[in-house]
Formats: sequence, structure tokens, C-alpha cells
Amino acid sequence: MKPGKFITLEGIDGAGKSTQLAWIVQLLQQAGCATVVTREPGGTPVGEQLRALLLDKASNMHPETEALLMFAARREHLDKVILPALSRGQWVISDRFSDASFAYQGGGRGLDTQKLAILEQWTQGSVQPNLTLYFDVPVELGQQRVSLIKNADRFEQEQNDFFQRVRAAYLDRAQQFPQRIKIIDSSLPLNAVKAAVAQILQKILKHG
Amino acid sequence: MKPGKFITLEGIDGAGKSTQLAWIVQLLQQAGCATVVTREPGGTPVGEQLRALLLDKASNMHPETEALLMFAARREHLDKVILPALSRGQWVISDRFSDASFAYQGGGRGLDTQKLAILEQWTQGSVQPNLTLYFDVPVELGQQRVSLIKNADRFEQEQNDFFQRVRAAYLDRAQQFPQRIKIIDSSLPLNAVKAAVAQILQKILKHG
Repeated sequence: MKPGKFITLEGIDGAGKSTQLAWIVQLLQQAGCATVVTREPGGTPVGEQLRALLLDKASNMHPETEALLMFAARREHLDKVILPALSRGQWVISDRFSDASFAYQGGGRGLDTQKLAILEQWTQGSVQPNLTLYFDVPVELGQQRVSLIKNADRFEQEQNDFFQRVRAAYLDRAQQFPQRIKIIDSSLPLNAVKAAVAQILQKILKHG
Repeated sequence: MKPGKFITLEGIDGAGKSTQLAWIVQLLQQAGCATVVTREPGGTPVGEQLRALLLDKASNMHPETEALLMFAARREHLDKVILPALSRGQWVISDRFSDASFAYQGGGRGLDTQKLAILEQWTQGSVQPNLTLYFDVPVELGQQRVSLIKNADRFEQEQNDFFQRVRAAYLDRAQQFPQRIKIIDSSLPLNAVKAAVAQILQKILKHG
């Protein structure tokens, strides 16, 4: 059995993460990999309770409280789901991870990146995804797709300029870690996006 | 009007904090001070939801998750209650604050003190109580008092040696910050404890 890898999917809502997540699982399972699909914030009983608190439009909280809660949920996620699965040799695919904190709490809310890096180090030490797929779309396109499917949560109700900052922070982060974070143009037709994902996955399956 | 001060009460359950808190409020109000009484974890809508999660016996969480949640609730508490009240000139009396994280998550759960100090700095910067009253009792006496009044929560259900470590960490912390933290022997008769509290409060009321 190949040793498992830790893959994270990032992007604003409407970037197509859910569709591509299903595609990634299909590709990995066809290659004989055992997979664990999870998400942030959440993925554990405590984390899902924190998710409810974080997404609730009635929750009025300081941006630093929000960041501490995101990393609290992440600490639990690492302990209960991600690290045990990797040590069993499974592949972990998580819908969002720490890059989302740099994008949303950093870019979106304006928290200092250095201050977030302290929490990142505190919470996860040297643990990083082996591969991060960042699905990039223009904010307007993402919002169009989201508005078709559901009511906005506490993050989704933010204005256009919030998501412009989130997107810019994601792109900054991808530039900073080009080995780990692959940018995928998610405004392309579905089949082209799937092909781009498949190409990247073949590489990690072949070369690790 | 005298500018407000930030006073925290610390100690294991059964140390008599609640009784002394009422006494402190009485003394301050007699001296003409406007008071705000609060507690940790909690004190805000988000903080009280985190308190419920932290104290729930069904919550199984990593000690570092617990620490991050305590500081998340604290960040919110500072933003919504403590700092606004102080800036209005009120006296804030909080049943527990950061010293409790060093005692419970540090001493009790065994987290590294330096690691907790990073979260303390991240969350509160240079904000510290003007005065901390640490009510010290032998663990057995505290537990006897608690067992008379209620069912144990997630912390109270811990074993004797957990509370011995909590007490030792409180005493360490008091030794480290002797100007701020005053140790009160809470195994003495109630009137003697009240007299000790009154003496310390007269001093801060007189000299600031």
C-alpha cells in the first residue's frame, strides 16, 4: 500500500470544490487508495459544534476570536481525524485547511499574517498538506453559483470586496508556496477543470 | 470618579470564590465604585456557548483544543465586556482569567507553560489584571465543599492528583507575579478570609 497523503481543497464558495472533491475521491479510489473525506471548520464532534457557532449569522465575534476558534477546530481535526488516518496509510482530502484562515481571517477580516502564522505554528507545528488545490474563480462567478443553491451563512453574507480580499490572499499564499499549492482556473468548463485536477493527481500518485 | 480596576479571582472549585466575589462587590460599592461582575470561561454570548462545550462531560477534546477555546472565549470577553467596562471607569471583577489557563491547562493537563504564554500574548497583549486574588485551599477541602452542592462538570470530575497539579501551578504563578497575585488562605474561617480580602481591597482603593 502506498503511504497516504494529505490533500486540501481551497477556494471561495462557488469555486466548485464539492464537485472536484467527488472527482478526486473517484480518481484516488480507482488508483487503489483508501480515502478519508473531511472538512473545516468541522470534521469532529467538537469541530462541528464550533462550525455551527462560526457560521451562525447571530454570532457576533471579534476577528481574533474567529481565528482562535478556527485553529481550535483545526487542532481537534488533526488529533481525531487527519493524523490518525495518515498514520493508517489513508489519503485525507479536506475541504479547506489553514490556507483558508490566511484567506478569510487574514485577507477577508484583515488580521495580520504574521499573527496568524503564530497560531498556525502553535496548532500544527510542521504539519502541512502534501498538496493543496486552490480553485480560483472571479468573485462574481463564485457568488452567482452560490446564490443559486442556498441561503448565505455568516461568511457568505459578506460583501463583494470581502471576497476580493479573500481571493487576493489565496493567490498570495499560492505564490508563497508554489510547490505545495497548485492554482486551478475554476472558471473553465467543468471537463477542463477535471482534467487539470486529474493531471496533478497523476503526478502525486506516480512520484509522491 | 476613580478610574476602574480589573480584579480577578482564582482558585479551584470549593475555594470560596463565589462567596468572596459577593463580598468584594459589596466593599467596592460601599466605596462608591461602579462594578461589573463576570466570569470565565464565558461572560459573552459566544463565550457562554464555549463554556457549555468546555464543561460538557460529553466533550472529548485534545488539551490544546481546550486551551485555544479558553483563549478564544477570553478574546471575546476582553472585547465585549472587560475593556469597554474599564474604559467607562467601571471596576471589573472576573471569576477566573488567564491564570486559570496556566493552572488548569498548564498544571492540570500538562501543557507547556511557554506555549500557553504565546497564546496569552497573542490574545491579550499587555493587558493583565490590576489585582488577582488567589484563594488557596487544600484540594481535599475544596472537593468536600464542592461535592455538597452540585454534580461535577468535565473539570470537576478529574481526580485528586489533577487538582494537586492545578493548585501547585497556581502557587507557582503567584510566586512569579507577587505584585499582582495575592495568595489568600481560604481554609481559614469565613470571617478571617473576608478580613484578608478587605485589607487588600482597602489598599488598592487607597493607593491604586
